[in-house]
Amino acid sequence: MSQGWDSSIKDELQMVEQEIHRSIGSKQPILTEICDYVISSGGKRMRPGVTILSYLASGGKEVGEVVKIAAAFEMIHSATLIHDDINDRSEMRRSHLSAYKKFGLQQALVSGDFLFVKAFAIGGFFNEEIVNLVAEACTAIAESEIVQFEKEGEVAPLDVYLGIVEGKTAKPIMAGARIGAYLANADPDRIHAMGEYGLNIGMAFQIVDDILDIVGTESSLGKPRMVDFFEGKATLPMIYAMEDPQVVPRLSQLFHKKVKGEKDVEEAWAIIARTDAVERSKLKANEYAEKALAALNGLPDSEHRLGLQRLATKVVDRNY
Amino acid sequence: MSQGWDSSIKDELQMVEQEIHRSIGSKQPILTEICDYVISSGGKRMRPGVTILSYLASGGKEVGEVVKIAAAFEMIHSATLIHDDINDRSEMRRSHLSAYKKFGLQQALVSGDFLFVKAFAIGGFFNEEIVNLVAEACTAIAESEIVQFEKEGEVAPLDVYLGIVEGKTAKPIMAGARIGAYLANADPDRIHAMGEYGLNIGMAFQIVDDILDIVGTESSLGKPRMVDFFEGKATLPMIYAMEDPQVVPRLSQLFHKKVKGEKDVEEAWAIIARTDAVERSKLKANEYAEKALAALNGLPDSEHRLGLQRLATKVVDRNY
Repeated sequence: MSQGWDSSIKDELQMVEQEIHRSIGSKQPILTEICDYVISSGGKRMRPGVTILSYLASGGKEVGEVVKIAAAFEMIHSATLIHDDINDRSEMRRSHLSAYKKFGLQQALVSGDFLFVKAFAIGGFFNEEIVNLVAEACTAIAESEIVQFEKEGEVAPLDVYLGIVEGKTAKPIMAGARIGAYLANADPDRIHAMGEYGLNIGMAFQIVDDILDIVGTESSLGKPRMVDFFEGKATLPMIYAMEDPQVVPRLSQLFHKKVKGEKDVEEAWAIIARTDAVERSKLKANEYAEKALAALNGLPDSEHRLGLQRLATKVVDRNY
Repeated sequence: MSQGWDSSIKDELQMVEQEIHRSIGSKQPILTEICDYVISSGGKRMRPGVTILSYLASGGKEVGEVVKIAAAFEMIHSATLIHDDINDRSEMRRSHLSAYKKFGLQQALVSGDFLFVKAFAIGGFFNEEIVNLVAEACTAIAESEIVQFEKEGEVAPLDVYLGIVEGKTAKPIMAGARIGAYLANADPDRIHAMGEYGLNIGMAFQIVDDILDIVGTESSLGKPRMVDFFEGKATLPMIYAMEDPQVVPRLSQLFHKKVKGEKDVEEAWAIIARTDAVERSKLKANEYAEKALAALNGLPDSEHRLGLQRLATKVVDRNY
């Protein structure tokens, strides 16, 4: 019987939910409602999961502290989702209306700030090393969002694309993984290795997200297909497709159209599907997943190590 | 010769500027540029000033730590200004284009997040008591913004209005004043008293801001007069004016107009000016300023105590 990557930490993930719900309590019920709406509407809890598994696999025994920091990372993630949807004017997220569509821009913006504050309040109770790691991760998110805005409407070079993915997705997961090992009193090499696991799993995860934006269906994605293309964001499959000189002229033309119709998007989809772009993207994601697995070398066998291994497989082998 | 309220802390305020500039450094120059634009464009540095004066007047000698926390409060303040302008669609702030008008919504939103993160990174290096005070202040800001949105287009009862002012303006200044005294190792009574000073000076300051929105000129304000009225925000003079049954019918009609023209705003201005609303608002602001002064009772004489006293006078006796 196949088990989930998180089967060894069900209790801890439940504690994370409780910590989040405790943290988002407010005198203003709408703040709690919006935060709860965003946090409850799906999400794979990969960020807290990696943090907790990293802690337990590194020999940690008392989960109280790591649960708190895992909750903080999930809250930071949710805050960025709320603000991202405002910035991208995204109407749907995980089959639900985005927070700003449902509750209004003002309320959503402030709820994102509120979540940041509450997450940092948790992080602030830890020592300088942890505060630094949390702050660096949040800085990386903001900085890579800026690069993403600047590159909107362009097919960025591969290294720029990978830099954006690293800052927006991989570095926060890396920070969580590092903190997990740090709290377990792991040695510096182990802390570094767990960080590498987090970084690479994050890269793989985001690339697969980008692939799913092309090969997924509206019902599996919970939002329309090819949203990135429609919004002028060149993701890895698009970057690879543009390396094929035969498709460049038309695909470029479609990508650079300021107002894209449904037909344009469908045509671009068909063009990308004809190239080897999706296959190459999958190989790239697999490469990262393998690096994540390799980072676990030397980690003692345990159900938690197994969970981390399963997650590396799951991340590249999913359709939602 | 009359001296400024901040004449005893010029060096420390300079250190705050340096701390802020060090903190907002980024690999993405636009983030630094936006933060610098907002932080440099005027501002009275009242928040860091109160924190530092509270520290020094309470006997603090080593300004290194209080400068950091003072910088953090100014950065949090600037972050909320950036996000507020997005939420209010305000085009002007302190005679400059608002950040979102100048740099675009996405860039401004992320810059606000970036400033929050950097401010919290500073706050996170302090102990739990301080982290709690900073987090509570930020929570109060977010919660009172929500109340403000909910009351937009209504003439809120006096206590609701005062609650919004307390959360948005007074509690953050209170937290800074408390932390100043705390870092100076003041006893709990002194910490409480300095908090009362900050709370009351904040109330007075915001009420005077609301008065200036009515009696000020576009050139002294750096933005159009009666912006609050135009945006459907009932401030203290409006609330008082609405207590005059003679003016209620027409003033209410103008206030509730969904689309207000220049003539509507001018007419409303003339109506409010005919009542005693501005005078009563000034009395209320004076009341708070006097409470702030009273909170300084028992504080040993010093140039810093004098600075706090001068600030209490200055806050209610200014035209910009």
